[in-house]
Amino acid sequence: MKSSTVSLRKQHTEATLLLHCPDRTGIVATLSRFISDNRGNIISIDQHSEDEDRAEEGGFFIRLCWRLDNFRLNHEQIVSELRKMGKKFQWNFDLHYSHEPHHVAVFVSREAHCLYDLLHSQAMGELQGEIRLIVSNHAHLRSVAEHFSVPFFMIPVEAKKKKEAEDIQRELLTSYDIHLIVLAKYMQILSPHFVKNWKNQIINVHHSFLPAFVGPKPYHQARARGVKVIGATSHYVTEDLDQGPIIAQSVTHVSHRDGVKELIRKGRDLERHVLSSAVRAHLDHRILTQRNRTVVFEA
Amino acid sequence: MKSSTVSLRKQHTEATLLLHCPDRTGIVATLSRFISDNRGNIISIDQHSEDEDRAEEGGFFIRLCWRLDNFRLNHEQIVSELRKMGKKFQWNFDLHYSHEPHHVAVFVSREAHCLYDLLHSQAMGELQGEIRLIVSNHAHLRSVAEHFSVPFFMIPVEAKKKKEAEDIQRELLTSYDIHLIVLAKYMQILSPHFVKNWKNQIINVHHSFLPAFVGPKPYHQARARGVKVIGATSHYVTEDLDQGPIIAQSVTHVSHRDGVKELIRKGRDLERHVLSSAVRAHLDHRILTQRNRTVVFEA
Amino acid sequence: MKSSTVSLRKQHTEATLLLHCPDRTGIVATLSRFISDNRGNIISIDQHSEDEDRAEEGGFFIRLCWRLDNFRLNHEQIVSELRKMGKKFQWNFDLHYSHEPHHVAVFVSREAHCLYDLLHSQAMGELQGEIRLIVSNHAHLRSVAEHFSVPFFMIPVEAKKKKEAEDIQRELLTSYDIHLIVLAKYMQILSPHFVKNWKNQIINVHHSFLPAFVGPKPYHQARARGVKVIGATSHYVTEDLDQGPIIAQSVTHVSHRDGVKELIRKGRDLERHVLSSAVRAHLDHRILTQRNRTVVFEA
Amino acid sequence: MKSSTVSLRKQHTEATLLLHCPDRTGIVATLSRFISDNRGNIISIDQHSEDEDRAEEGGFFIRLCWRLDNFRLNHEQIVSELRKMGKKFQWNFDLHYSHEPHHVAVFVSREAHCLYDLLHSQAMGELQGEIRLIVSNHAHLRSVAEHFSVPFFMIPVEAKKKKEAEDIQRELLTSYDIHLIVLAKYMQILSPHFVKNWKNQIINVHHSFLPAFVGPKPYHQARARGVKVIGATSHYVTEDLDQGPIIAQSVTHVSHRDGVKELIRKGRDLERHVLSSAVRAHLDHRILTQRNRTVVFEA
Repeated sequence: MKSSTVSLRKQHTEATLLLHCPDRTGIVATLSRFISDNRGNIISIDQHSEDEDRAEEGGFFIRLCWRLDNFRLNHEQIVSELRKMGKKFQWNFDLHYSHEPHHVAVFVSREAHCLYDLLHSQAMGELQGEIRLIVSNHAHLRSVAEHFSVPFFMIPVEAKKKKEAEDIQRELLTSYDIHLIVLAKYMQILSPHFVKNWKNQIINVHHSFLPAFVGPKPYHQARARGVKVIGATSHYVTEDLDQGPIIAQSVTHVSHRDGVKELIRKGRDLERHVLSSAVRAHLDHRILTQRNRTVVFEA
Repeated sequence: MKSSTVSLRKQHTEATLLLHCPDRTGIVATLSRFISDNRGNIISIDQHSEDEDRAEEGGFFIRLCWRLDNFRLNHEQIVSELRKMGKKFQWNFDLHYSHEPHHVAVFVSREAHCLYDLLHSQAMGELQGEIRLIVSNHAHLRSVAEHFSVPFFMIPVEAKKKKEAEDIQRELLTSYDIHLIVLAKYMQILSPHFVKNWKNQIINVHHSFLPAFVGPKPYHQARARGVKVIGATSHYVTEDLDQGPIIAQSVTHVSHRDGVKELIRKGRDLERHVLSSAVRAHLDHRILTQRNRTVVFEA
Repeated sequence: MKSSTVSLRKQHTEATLLLHCPDRTGIVATLSRFISDNRGNIISIDQHSEDEDRAEEGGFFIRLCWRLDNFRLNHEQIVSELRKMGKKFQWNFDLHYSHEPHHVAVFVSREAHCLYDLLHSQAMGELQGEIRLIVSNHAHLRSVAEHFSVPFFMIPVEAKKKKEAEDIQRELLTSYDIHLIVLAKYMQILSPHFVKNWKNQIINVHHSFLPAFVGPKPYHQARARGVKVIGATSHYVTEDLDQGPIIAQSVTHVSHRDGVKELIRKGRDLERHVLSSAVRAHLDHRILTQRNRTVVFEA
Repeated sequence: MKSSTVSLRKQHTEATLLLHCPDRTGIVATLSRFISDNRGNIISIDQHSEDEDRAEEGGFFIRLCWRLDNFRLNHEQIVSELRKMGKKFQWNFDLHYSHEPHHVAVFVSREAHCLYDLLHSQAMGELQGEIRLIVSNHAHLRSVAEHFSVPFFMIPVEAKKKKEAEDIQRELLTSYDIHLIVLAKYMQILSPHFVKNWKNQIINVHHSFLPAFVGPKPYHQARARGVKVIGATSHYVTEDLDQGPIIAQSVTHVSHRDGVKELIRKGRDLERHVLSSAVRAHLDHRILTQRNRTVVFEA
């Protein structure tokens, strides 16, 4: 099955701005005036602000999307203007364009369910991005990659040679111009050094409802504790294992009837759902991260 | 249990604007400039636009909330300015203030579960409104009203004297200055004449997942059809029974084990949940209605 | 990816009895005595009885599973004994053996999501059955079948030649010794004649929460009605379109943000989940059907 | 509102046997033969067995319900016979009768939502038991108890006088002949000595999805960790705080929009749902407990 070329949902070219700063008066007015004064047409605006009493950090988060058809500024000019305005508001921002969809690398080991789901999603035109390569420490899923016509690289990770493996991975990521790494049941732990260079650009799926059952064999843990609900979590990878900012969580009811095997089967369903949801949110540029928490605007 | 006076979540006085018009360039910029030019501070902005290809009607919907602390315009001036600007954009709008919470009348018959839920919600300070009176065609729930110290009026509705009953109801609604009527398992059908005067101001709970199982005895219908999921629906009341704009729906799994009695018990849970959710959305001014559909912004 | 041979969860050979009769005293005692007197070991017993006040039909339903290791009777003897006892109780029964898993044919058109899910489930050893062939009226999904090494037959269905197509299908079903047909987004309507011969042996997935939105384009209907929940339904196919006994239903929340495209995407997830759940229940011999309703025992 | 007398769902008197033993051949046959030989009519049978490979403990669990109308044995005889048979199978059992519903004490502090729910459930005839008294360390909810006409006892628990308070509680529990204690947001920790005497007879509701967020302020913890799902747990109380056997868990999605206040509001809904579900299961005699896990048969 040929992986279709990315089908962009929108016919017009659009810019998406993700911006974060301390909360204060005039941010929306400043930004919307900037866009309309330059003949942009705002398509959508999502905004979130946190009161100080809610969370010590506080803060203002916005996602602004506008049409570029008659916009008077080019990329450099937009960035330069946003920087100028940003001095007053102390904001950080990212800028994305609908005609420059992100490039994705999927890392896998032996389990195929998340990989099938992502590749089929892409084939259906559901992803605002392009899966450009698949990396695995096993040959096991090569045929899946071939079936969807996506390049597959087998890079074994030996016990004491992780650095060598990561060097090869890094080269591949560079040469394929990758923006996002998706760990779709990749059963290896990436080194802190590797992770540091991909801040908020590596999405993992953890097979439990974090923060319950961190560590290995969560379904065995869940069975032993006799829980009546299990879950799965997608999150950005940080240097602290299983501690990164949570993007999405899914849960399902279980009972005494569900042995470990059944929990694993139900968990597979949760895992692919929660990973696919996180990947779509990231590729749609709907996620802002502050410290260890995410703001995920609705699709 | 004394019904607490309305506890407003926000300390500052706020205005909330709900606005609807055809989609075109510059609406957000115009509104946010209007607010900031008059020294208002935008607290939150929610917006939704519908492409023409999605729905024939199209349209732009916005909810804007700002602080009035140093705002330079009074109510009359705000309305007058919004009307002036509205000529260009053909918008319709409603304006609400946090210091003027809506007054609510709850209509009931014999079932208490939704009434308890609403009154307890109010006691917890969860409602941005005030339940001022309870109207019933039975004396059955008088003690519940008394327990929460809310005035209770028993207005029997006899077969051919609905008009007389509605006349009394209307007088009560006027003298209590009511903005919203909640039908919390009120087992009478209001006349078209009555309904017409309260457009998008009467919320009903229907004991099924509409549009499945319209009409009476939906749980018996559900059992007979052998469905595996049941639901409940809250909606604005229109002259077409069970056809008004849907505000919220809740669902739960059922099985062959659930007889009609069990379905009714599960349904009660869904009903109170879905009615309370709709009432909160309305009192928070988060609902916009176009033709037969609602836009319900998240809380 | 090679479709694995069926991996039976249990090491011992087991018999599963599905039995249905009017409710009366002594059924469980009779059956369990029959099994233990013949040295069978009951592994699991699921039972359901309907009071007359619940449903006019009433009835007793049981699923009994026992080990055959030292059982003193062979198949013919079991059937003969059950028939003898059945005269008193007027029961109907089906008997299945774990070493004779059912053979499955999957019918598809152009959409792949349910097919991938079923084939991957089989590869994971989740199905107590064997997908032996895939039938389609299009060539579109041939590569998916090949990827999983399952025979694929393209049988075009022309407007006035449905009978001819069904004749070929019937031959295939016979020669592959098929017990269950799964319509995994097969966009053709089978003839009443065809359906009649496969009573409770054809499972379809309908892209709505039945009985809401029968007929074509349910997601467009759902969007037009402004519902806040959508669903999918798997059911046995009967001669009345969309009216067969419901096996499983799944639902998910939607909002004004979800256009028809998004509803379809969310619907795909529901469809594969609900179809896979029904197929597993059928292959596990957990479904009993009475008139237009199912009893589905938990896994 | 007068709390109705317990309405028993079934017209006939029934016995319910809960039994637990190591798994071996012939248990179902032995029990069902025992019942039918004595002219009992089995109404329902629920059974669960755990393979050794699933859990080290293994075991067989059964719930058997039969009509006593023409049963030839009285209580003493049933118990005596079950004990005799039990020598072979090493079983433990409990026996309950539909005409002897359990007596319940509800312990509360200041929060009313769970209490309203339980009392209203009883008024609706949903509970197979009778709430006989309400105990609180505050006077706050006295009016709720009075509204439902249930005796209310205020027993303050002072810092170093817990023993004295528990002595009074114990006397009350004895004089009201209580079988089940429900901690409906009782914000005191019972002493190990007290708990030991009520094994599997005290049900608590914990305001989180255990085992995540044990300890105080779970909603603040949840907010700080940025989870996307919150939950509530009902469990039997053991001497290890928050570690007892889990009976039911409920979960709901949350987002960055939900501050601690909103989490608490959503949590209240989960708490009453999950507590009510556990109380109904216990009073229906549908729960068996082994070590730290429950088998909860479906209603």
